[in-house]
Amino acid sequence: MLEDILKQVEKGLLTAEEAKKRLATFENLGFAKVDHHRTKRQGFPEVIFGEGKEPAHIIDISRAMMAKNENILVTRVELEKAQIILEHLPNFSYDPTARILLMKNHEESVHYQGYISIVCAGTSDLPVAEEAAKTAEAYGVEVRRFYDVGVAGIHRLLAHIDEIRKATVTVVIAGMEGALPSVVGGLVSHPVIAVPTSIGYGASFNGLSALLTMLNSCASGISVVNIDNGFGGAYNAVMIHRIANQNNI
Amino acid sequence: MLEDILKQVEKGLLTAEEAKKRLATFENLGFAKVDHHRTKRQGFPEVIFGEGKEPAHIIDISRAMMAKNENILVTRVELEKAQIILEHLPNFSYDPTARILLMKNHEESVHYQGYISIVCAGTSDLPVAEEAAKTAEAYGVEVRRFYDVGVAGIHRLLAHIDEIRKATVTVVIAGMEGALPSVVGGLVSHPVIAVPTSIGYGASFNGLSALLTMLNSCASGISVVNIDNGFGGAYNAVMIHRIANQNNI
Amino acid sequence: MLEDILKQVEKGLLTAEEAKKRLATFENLGFAKVDHHRTKRQGFPEVIFGEGKEPAHIIDISRAMMAKNENILVTRVELEKAQIILEHLPNFSYDPTARILLMKNHEESVHYQGYISIVCAGTSDLPVAEEAAKTAEAYGVEVRRFYDVGVAGIHRLLAHIDEIRKATVTVVIAGMEGALPSVVGGLVSHPVIAVPTSIGYGASFNGLSALLTMLNSCASGISVVNIDNGFGGAYNAVMIHRIANQNNI
Amino acid sequence: MLEDILKQVEKGLLTAEEAKKRLATFENLGFAKVDHHRTKRQGFPEVIFGEGKEPAHIIDISRAMMAKNENILVTRVELEKAQIILEHLPNFSYDPTARILLMKNHEESVHYQGYISIVCAGTSDLPVAEEAAKTAEAYGVEVRRFYDVGVAGIHRLLAHIDEIRKATVTVVIAGMEGALPSVVGGLVSHPVIAVPTSIGYGASFNGLSALLTMLNSCASGISVVNIDNGFGGAYNAVMIHRIANQNNI
Amino acid sequence: MLEDILKQVEKGLLTAEEAKKRLATFENLGFAKVDHHRTKRQGFPEVIFGEGKEPAHIIDISRAMMAKNENILVTRVELEKAQIILEHLPNFSYDPTARILLMKNHEESVHYQGYISIVCAGTSDLPVAEEAAKTAEAYGVEVRRFYDVGVAGIHRLLAHIDEIRKATVTVVIAGMEGALPSVVGGLVSHPVIAVPTSIGYGASFNGLSALLTMLNSCASGISVVNIDNGFGGAYNAVMIHRIANQNNI
Amino acid sequence: MLEDILKQVEKGLLTAEEAKKRLATFENLGFAKVDHHRTKRQGFPEVIFGEGKEPAHIIDISRAMMAKNENILVTRVELEKAQIILEHLPNFSYDPTARILLMKNHEESVHYQGYISIVCAGTSDLPVAEEAAKTAEAYGVEVRRFYDVGVAGIHRLLAHIDEIRKATVTVVIAGMEGALPSVVGGLVSHPVIAVPTSIGYGASFNGLSALLTMLNSCASGISVVNIDNGFGGAYNAVMIHRIANQNNI
Amino acid sequence: MLEDILKQVEKGLLTAEEAKKRLATFENLGFAKVDHHRTKRQGFPEVIFGEGKEPAHIIDISRAMMAKNENILVTRVELEKAQIILEHLPNFSYDPTARILLMKNHEESVHYQGYISIVCAGTSDLPVAEEAAKTAEAYGVEVRRFYDVGVAGIHRLLAHIDEIRKATVTVVIAGMEGALPSVVGGLVSHPVIAVPTSIGYGASFNGLSALLTMLNSCASGISVVNIDNGFGGAYNAVMIHRIANQNNI
Amino acid sequence: MLEDILKQVEKGLLTAEEAKKRLATFENLGFAKVDHHRTKRQGFPEVIFGEGKEPAHIIDISRAMMAKNENILVTRVELEKAQIILEHLPNFSYDPTARILLMKNHEESVHYQGYISIVCAGTSDLPVAEEAAKTAEAYGVEVRRFYDVGVAGIHRLLAHIDEIRKATVTVVIAGMEGALPSVVGGLVSHPVIAVPTSIGYGASFNGLSALLTMLNSCASGISVVNIDNGFGGAYNAVMIHRIANQNNI
Repeated sequence: MLEDILKQVEKGLLTAEEAKKRLATFENLGFAKVDHHRTKRQGFPEVIFGEGKEPAHIIDISRAMMAKNENILVTRVELEKAQIILEHLPNFSYDPTARILLMKNHEESVHYQGYISIVCAGTSDLPVAEEAAKTAEAYGVEVRRFYDVGVAGIHRLLAHIDEIRKATVTVVIAGMEGALPSVVGGLVSHPVIAVPTSIGYGASFNGLSALLTMLNSCASGISVVNIDNGFGGAYNAVMIHRIANQNNI
Repeated sequence: MLEDILKQVEKGLLTAEEAKKRLATFENLGFAKVDHHRTKRQGFPEVIFGEGKEPAHIIDISRAMMAKNENILVTRVELEKAQIILEHLPNFSYDPTARILLMKNHEESVHYQGYISIVCAGTSDLPVAEEAAKTAEAYGVEVRRFYDVGVAGIHRLLAHIDEIRKATVTVVIAGMEGALPSVVGGLVSHPVIAVPTSIGYGASFNGLSALLTMLNSCASGISVVNIDNGFGGAYNAVMIHRIANQNNI
Repeated sequence: MLEDILKQVEKGLLTAEEAKKRLATFENLGFAKVDHHRTKRQGFPEVIFGEGKEPAHIIDISRAMMAKNENILVTRVELEKAQIILEHLPNFSYDPTARILLMKNHEESVHYQGYISIVCAGTSDLPVAEEAAKTAEAYGVEVRRFYDVGVAGIHRLLAHIDEIRKATVTVVIAGMEGALPSVVGGLVSHPVIAVPTSIGYGASFNGLSALLTMLNSCASGISVVNIDNGFGGAYNAVMIHRIANQNNI
Repeated sequence: MLEDILKQVEKGLLTAEEAKKRLATFENLGFAKVDHHRTKRQGFPEVIFGEGKEPAHIIDISRAMMAKNENILVTRVELEKAQIILEHLPNFSYDPTARILLMKNHEESVHYQGYISIVCAGTSDLPVAEEAAKTAEAYGVEVRRFYDVGVAGIHRLLAHIDEIRKATVTVVIAGMEGALPSVVGGLVSHPVIAVPTSIGYGASFNGLSALLTMLNSCASGISVVNIDNGFGGAYNAVMIHRIANQNNI
Repeated sequence: MLEDILKQVEKGLLTAEEAKKRLATFENLGFAKVDHHRTKRQGFPEVIFGEGKEPAHIIDISRAMMAKNENILVTRVELEKAQIILEHLPNFSYDPTARILLMKNHEESVHYQGYISIVCAGTSDLPVAEEAAKTAEAYGVEVRRFYDVGVAGIHRLLAHIDEIRKATVTVVIAGMEGALPSVVGGLVSHPVIAVPTSIGYGASFNGLSALLTMLNSCASGISVVNIDNGFGGAYNAVMIHRIANQNNI
Repeated sequence: MLEDILKQVEKGLLTAEEAKKRLATFENLGFAKVDHHRTKRQGFPEVIFGEGKEPAHIIDISRAMMAKNENILVTRVELEKAQIILEHLPNFSYDPTARILLMKNHEESVHYQGYISIVCAGTSDLPVAEEAAKTAEAYGVEVRRFYDVGVAGIHRLLAHIDEIRKATVTVVIAGMEGALPSVVGGLVSHPVIAVPTSIGYGASFNGLSALLTMLNSCASGISVVNIDNGFGGAYNAVMIHRIANQNNI
Repeated sequence: MLEDILKQVEKGLLTAEEAKKRLATFENLGFAKVDHHRTKRQGFPEVIFGEGKEPAHIIDISRAMMAKNENILVTRVELEKAQIILEHLPNFSYDPTARILLMKNHEESVHYQGYISIVCAGTSDLPVAEEAAKTAEAYGVEVRRFYDVGVAGIHRLLAHIDEIRKATVTVVIAGMEGALPSVVGGLVSHPVIAVPTSIGYGASFNGLSALLTMLNSCASGISVVNIDNGFGGAYNAVMIHRIANQNNI
Repeated sequence: MLEDILKQVEKGLLTAEEAKKRLATFENLGFAKVDHHRTKRQGFPEVIFGEGKEPAHIIDISRAMMAKNENILVTRVELEKAQIILEHLPNFSYDPTARILLMKNHEESVHYQGYISIVCAGTSDLPVAEEAAKTAEAYGVEVRRFYDVGVAGIHRLLAHIDEIRKATVTVVIAGMEGALPSVVGGLVSHPVIAVPTSIGYGASFNGLSALLTMLNSCASGISVVNIDNGFGGAYNAVMIHRIANQNNI
């Protein structure tokens, strides 16, 4: 892109001043532009991390995106905050378990084949698992859910392992001892994204125990995201799923 | 015991002075006496924690015990230290993997039925596993070893699960993510003693990761001992195995 | 069990399709079945970990279990949540100190001999101690309570030590410095399950201090469960007590 | 596979006894078999984690794999240990920076298109970066190295960003503050695998600082492996690169 | 000063008793006096750390300062507390984002040239950034704000880097991974004061992650203050800015 | 005491049964008795740690002590709880800063000479300082308070150092960096009891910073109690002050 | 002292210049002078912390002190370093267990009555216990040693408790779980100085476990010094013992 | 600079291709160029962090710099490594305490007025203090050293405080409790750069204690660098000293 602009200056098609603006735009607004392009091409909605943001703040950003017909995904929105936002922007749909606001302003143009697996250890991990699942679905990816299959009853997992294996990538969510990704990682041959959760008490130290377990996994092909980061787990999975769906080489 | 002594004083069979000595003896030497009795009755050898003790120190304690025909178990003895001790006390046999010195000075009078399972995750956990196994065997308990059955290849464990299930109690040893006790705990219906090991690197933090995993296990019936404490894991198991072998109620 | 099913297929008594379902059932529903059997045979109620579960969730699981006449134990239920559940399921009895809901839907068929000791350091540890005690009682095991016998006044413990010694197994509960299990472990010859509590302030770090103390105990025969895990402490003790009551070898 | 075996029993082609063995084989030896298949099909060598293993141990495993013409990758082998192994198995080639032993016993049948980027922050991170690079190359994947491009001189990175962007996936290795993956993650649109290293001093706490930085990255599309786990970083990248090279849906 | 007083005693201008008082005053009240002088000379208002102080306490100190026409800066005042104080001292102006109360009781006599840059990573860091900005402004220093220029979109920072470079000193505020100071430090040639914030979740451990990142920065010229200490960051910057504005050598 | 009882049994003045009871009493009730004696002899009130105790619980214990005319000190009682207790036991006086309830049921018979110094760093440390001061006063010891003399203004401390030096023992209370005990310890020649407080934010980690500072003090003669343990600091000081007041050798 | 000097200036006995020097001397050399006085008056030798100091450094300081006939105590001197020093200063006597060098250059003029107790949990704690014991003896205080009386065999402690009780003050040294001070603190009525040691393994975290235990002790009258700080424990005890021996009020 | 290049393209003085190279050069080689300019203008030598670098590596970089007549500063070079380098590059001078290699290849053109203070707590902190001092001197800045003035003997510091106060900036180095910066910060009115050291034992946790102390300092105007980072402390100080010496606004 730098080259193109320089060539245009060389040819007299662009003044130095305009080139500087254009480059600045590329550096700053340009990134947003690329994002818009990406959205239209790939059906990827923009994402707003809702935690710690004022409702008014979220509404303003959303309106700017609505003006460009972008799909909008807002994560970590508690019920009360969601209700305020919904009063102003009723086009949002809200999922109270996943704590996600979603607004579809255009049809997605891509249609992915295959699916990703979302596996979680216990029912208490559901909010994180659903944050992951809804995120992936917002990006147009099919999700298959395998919930409450923790390692203390390994047969529950084994009963579903064939279907899990056929996914492109698996997101494994677990709190407490966080051992599930190791077991899944040993049973599948695709990448596993491990998401520790803060579920537990005492020596779980708000997810530290599960996080360490996952980082120390003796199974290969496992990588880890932050505690309770269901969105991040899904985003990584979607990126890989997209690679599986395109001839990107 | 206090009552007996008081009764003897009351009957004039014991002076106050003698009673005081006897009680003091009971409190102090008495404990050692009880230990001697227990040794003879149950075949339990006395245990010396070798780490940080001078060879001369270990030799002295051993000689005192030899004088009473006790069986002697010395744990955490590195090769070099063992060689010094063996020069003075050639009756000891040394296991370099378990780092254990053992001397049998009398035949055990009890014969336990059944066995305990010792399950370990990886080959690097072998020294701790063998410390546990040799300890249990020193106490006259049959041990069945199930090594290198970590959760990253769960089928290795499942292939042996029936034999593991038939034990009275299982000691599970694992480093790195330490997930094995949770899986075993969900598959057996007897108590599981979990022993975290310091095997691992980086975020294993010298066994902290495995320790936290085990403490947070979502499987019931698991209790935990200190990192690398193979002796402690076995000792707990032997205590339970002994209960299973006696009508102690 | 695998062998039985295969034999039936060989004999033509079972089609491959049915065998596959049956095995799947064994892996998945099968575990629940075993649990039902175990409940009837041993008087063990199913356990629901109440913390973080919606009242509606607990009510649904409970109703499914009531339909099978199982005894139901729900742990970690705060007063408010208990009241909601009791409105719908008045057969539950609630213990506000232990925060336990219990419903007996059938008489227990086993009658254990002997008892387990539950020893706690201070009056602030009572909720955890009672969670342990009520759990053991729910499983039909006799409990003897020795409360407020912390190490700062060692004579309080010594006054009761004979009765504690006669138990099959002892659960020791302590917060703050958590030193009590070491002292008890040195005075009894049966297994000690140590339960650290989060009682304390400052450098107790929510139970970390007591947990480390117990893991580092220089007394043999002590194993540890998670901070505040009264249920887990009792469950381990009940398992051992059951072994003491049966000829399981 | 279970279904096939059951069908064969149903048809009388297999006795129950043989089926049981076959299934056991599948569970246990079977896994190794799949590994062999995978090796031949995908050119993936088996991997031996060398740290903490005796040279004799590594030699034995290697010989078993040589008998099957497998490619062999041994990681974490210090110079001295490598020299012992090379005396017995001179077909190994040793890379002292990556601390990797590699033996190619057959030509790889797959030829991947595209490449993965390996980006590292400083020259001290080289051993981990080379462990990653050599691992990926051992799996037949082209690697492009971008070393010494840490965030303290962001222009070094920007000068190479176009080439980095064209990779399928990027492995980013950094010690000290570990900020590089966040910057790279914001500049590329493919997955980033972040590998913290233990390089640093003082408050780097042996890599903890870099690890936390990477887990908390505000850039999306980043997942993390254990401290110094160059192999793990590369293995995840190779898995994704393989997905990009096949129509696996 | 000691010398002056001793000289006066020597000359008989001061009794020993008076000299002692004067010296005590110097040690105790003297410091406050110097503060008053400094205030008048440099336009530095006194600072009250509001957190944990009763409103009445703050009002009393403020009144004492008002009596001396000092400018008053109160940091860490939550809205509710500010409202109570404003009822009694309506001359204060309150900034709810920075949580700062400010009262100007005299015009500042110094006029600094140049400005300091305040750079922050994300919108959630705003309260800390504004605490820094308002603090510097209260000391009469011009501030230029560069907000929401985190490392995940490095171009946002690069677009403003020339203006940032021209400052005397830069305060960089960042939570989560805290990588921004390293990047800024590599791009400017003046001192950078890094302020970690507690913004983040999971493995951010309330700012510990950002703090460690900043301490381990591989860029030179970065020093760090406590988590969320916007005031401290600005105070250090103001000190340096003051040095740049005076011939203090 | 044991000897006395044994002698009485020997002389027939006591039966074995009575001796056993007496010894049990000595072990259990005996301790309480000694406490009563000590109270009367030394004017030491019994202490109740109020935190986590029900008001009813505190009232019951207090009544038992009132029945024996003991002085009663209850620490860590929040305002609301104090009000409930005061309704039932109006003889208590309550100090809301120190959060202490005190009831004098008899005049103290001892009159100590000298005083102890209580030195604290900042006004926010006042509750802990007053808990210490009121505790010492409840034990009949004169206290001199030196508040708000933190190290950031060392002259405030130096102005009072002569009076501090003349105390028998000094309790130094400080939060944040906790440096004050080191400075005081270097200036006095009597024992210093250091009490870290949880005052601070960010990297103070709820008092951990101050605690570590005090434990690592390079000044001799400093020992440390738990974070916020004003009572413990004073209790140690009172013990030493008592030694200074008696000929106990 | 300030007053005296000022008075002399007032009377013309001292010029301002001389007074300034004298005061400077007081501040700087003066402190050393006071130390000399104290040494002569109380028999307290100066102390050199040997760890991390060059032998030459220690020799120089020692010679300066020898020139003033002071007694010299050097702590933390490993055998090798001691041998170098002894070659140059053969008047030192070295204790290899306590790692202490001691040189008596004058007879102590004070003769303390009574003794202090030094109690330690295990034989591995001996070096720290002896550092404490030799320190106290170097200060002329009688020490009674009660070693290897850890809480796992409480009767060993109880057998000696009467003699321990009669001390002025007790230093309790323990590693691993560090529970001994709590038990001793509950049995004696004088101050207890607790010294955690780094003895242990795994979750002892180099003494952290013992340290936390001691800080959280539920027994009153316990204060704590740094891990392995036998000198510090003894120094505090000696200070208290000195108070008990003088009429310092 | 971008603007200049664009203007030259516009004027036909530069082709697009050349402009692209020039810009790339600016980004990459350009940075080195700026460094060269800076060296000549300000007498700042380039710095090589020697720890973890091979001697050959350091020699190569040094030769490249010698070719440009740059001054060279190599930090963290242990004696043995220095000797190897000195054999090849005898123009280096080596300071074994500071572990610094320095080579002056040109005279510095700037002459700063004033000085910076380097204050350290104990003699064990000397290596870090000298790393700081030699660094500042290498940059041509006058250093005044105030060593062994730790807070346990506050008068040692006070005796020198006037000279310390007159510096432009002070670097304060302390291990163990790390309290010195707080005290100095309260006594001077210029910026203080605090450098924690790893000196200490037990609960100093390799400098963590000192680091936390400094971050929590209640004195304003203190900022902190990494543990043992003497170079970093000095570099920040030099930057500020340079500002004080120039009219940079």
